[in-house]
Amino acid sequence: MPRSPRYLILADENFGPETSKTANACIRYTPDHVVGVIDRRQAGRTAQQVLGFGGAIPVVATLDEGLALKPNALLIGIAPAGGQIPPDWVRLVGRAIEHTLEIWSGLHSFIGDIPELAALAKQHGVTIHDLRRPPAKLPVSNGRVREVAATVVLTVGTDCNIGKMTTQLQLLGKLRARGIRTSFAATGQTGILIEGRGIGVDAVVADFIGGAAESLVLECAAESDLVLVEGQGSIIHPSYSGVTYGLLHGSLPHAQIMCAQPSRTAINRCEWVKIPPLVDFIRMSEAAAAPLRPAPVIGVALNTYDLDEASALRAVETVHRETGLPTTDPVRFDPAPVVDASARFHETR
Amino acid sequence: MPRSPRYLILADENFGPETSKTANACIRYTPDHVVGVIDRRQAGRTAQQVLGFGGAIPVVATLDEGLALKPNALLIGIAPAGGQIPPDWVRLVGRAIEHTLEIWSGLHSFIGDIPELAALAKQHGVTIHDLRRPPAKLPVSNGRVREVAATVVLTVGTDCNIGKMTTQLQLLGKLRARGIRTSFAATGQTGILIEGRGIGVDAVVADFIGGAAESLVLECAAESDLVLVEGQGSIIHPSYSGVTYGLLHGSLPHAQIMCAQPSRTAINRCEWVKIPPLVDFIRMSEAAAAPLRPAPVIGVALNTYDLDEASALRAVETVHRETGLPTTDPVRFDPAPVVDASARFHETR
Repeated sequence: MPRSPRYLILADENFGPETSKTANACIRYTPDHVVGVIDRRQAGRTAQQVLGFGGAIPVVATLDEGLALKPNALLIGIAPAGGQIPPDWVRLVGRAIEHTLEIWSGLHSFIGDIPELAALAKQHGVTIHDLRRPPAKLPVSNGRVREVAATVVLTVGTDCNIGKMTTQLQLLGKLRARGIRTSFAATGQTGILIEGRGIGVDAVVADFIGGAAESLVLECAAESDLVLVEGQGSIIHPSYSGVTYGLLHGSLPHAQIMCAQPSRTAINRCEWVKIPPLVDFIRMSEAAAAPLRPAPVIGVALNTYDLDEASALRAVETVHRETGLPTTDPVRFDPAPVVDASARFHETR
Repeated sequence: MPRSPRYLILADENFGPETSKTANACIRYTPDHVVGVIDRRQAGRTAQQVLGFGGAIPVVATLDEGLALKPNALLIGIAPAGGQIPPDWVRLVGRAIEHTLEIWSGLHSFIGDIPELAALAKQHGVTIHDLRRPPAKLPVSNGRVREVAATVVLTVGTDCNIGKMTTQLQLLGKLRARGIRTSFAATGQTGILIEGRGIGVDAVVADFIGGAAESLVLECAAESDLVLVEGQGSIIHPSYSGVTYGLLHGSLPHAQIMCAQPSRTAINRCEWVKIPPLVDFIRMSEAAAAPLRPAPVIGVALNTYDLDEASALRAVETVHRETGLPTTDPVRFDPAPVVDASARFHETR
């Protein structure tokens, strides 16, 4: 990572609470490193006005307006529809390189594999960071993580994009503040961007999902006593359950924290898969881990951003009553219930 | 595939019942297409003597001796330790190309990506078939298979290398002989080699495991009424469960056939993972499928190769009694119980 990154974030026509996950997490956790966002539709507004957080970070309409904000890096903050990089993005990224901006991208299609951009980057001495590019050599997992002393806590969820990374980031600072040597094992492009290291487990060759998770936990455990692993997908997600299980069985957590959105009753974009009641889902998640290493669910992190305050509080109370587990929305309310649960689990294990 | 393949199989120092899976399946199912096997340790013996099947196929010590058998293709029948292709294999493959042998390989490291071999192949007009190379564009899965009329049957297993492909191949011919339009969806390099098409689901980028399975089922369902999907891994395998779940939730089978080895009590090379009793394991496998599409286990295929005849028969009887399911060793004994179960399930669904 550049020592003082000053990101200009490309989120054209898609900057919003639900459509620019990478941009939003970067703005939430490292706002001082973001100089602006490109989105012609929202130009003239601020991040705060669009997202509800992020303060005065301006939204601009074009790369040229963005360059006036003196960025030193362009961050691709959204995924193009269909996964292919459209020609006008290639042109825009090329012009950013010509202005010596580093390129940061979490796309499945690697920016550095586009010959004209690779050539331009070489010519201008600019680094292209493809966050999802997996390490060259990965092992298959075989349980080596069982030999480390550190406590491993994995966030899991009923669906994608429900708070698994955010919950770990909220926990990270609070646990460190309590004097517990805690590390964050980033498994997705946004987590890697924020942490500065990690492996995008969804981008490795399928046979090596578990191996990637295992490598990452071993690395984090070498320097901390508590490893917070960023979960991915859902054990019932038609598209991504393979990644979820590979991560679960590769990282071999001692405990799980369940992430859920009270208003969500089916998998996003696969509405035919209904999400079971949370109490049942927690039992399923514990059963999924048990044959390899028992990992009780020790707390619930709710995502209540689409509820009013009173409904959100009621949802927290209901889930706490039904599951018997410490429950909170760790972004909106005090994260203490899940922080306490994690610290207690670690200290008494 | 060449119209009349005449494979010389490279299995040097590893030709044996448990160490050369790809070679062995090719010899079992397409013996007429195998002219010889290279293994300096077993040279002078026959496939029959080494494996217990394969008849008079000779084992030779060197490529030159193999060339005398007039092969038109070299098949890499084993995986090198560590996954990297050793320099003497590169030399041997290079010499095979110079003798205009096509190259068939199921390794994770692609032969066609070795510059000197790619150049040689071009020079000699020889095709390199990297069986695991995934299709260029894969979708993520989203349940499109729910729209096809065909019955989908997946083999699952307690562990790797336990009979999931073999069971489907045993079923394929028998079901076709009964007049059911049946197809085989190959998901691993050996299955692809035998079937001539398929996708190595363990070699795709992790996010697309389900999408690969879905694409394959859609393709097979377009030309048949019953699709037999080759399973991979195990839902409790520390290294490969991600692939197993991605395949299960991407192919969305209507029914499962459970493959097990009575003598195996723990996962191979991960002995710390005990295999639960088969009755429990069957329930776990049904539970894994249920949130997306219920897929009852309709039969059990045992792998009894390491038992004497009487013990094997007893194992079949015991599992049949304990599970209440049609049970057989479809290679050693009459496959009728699982053939009947599949045909009945298809016809009454």
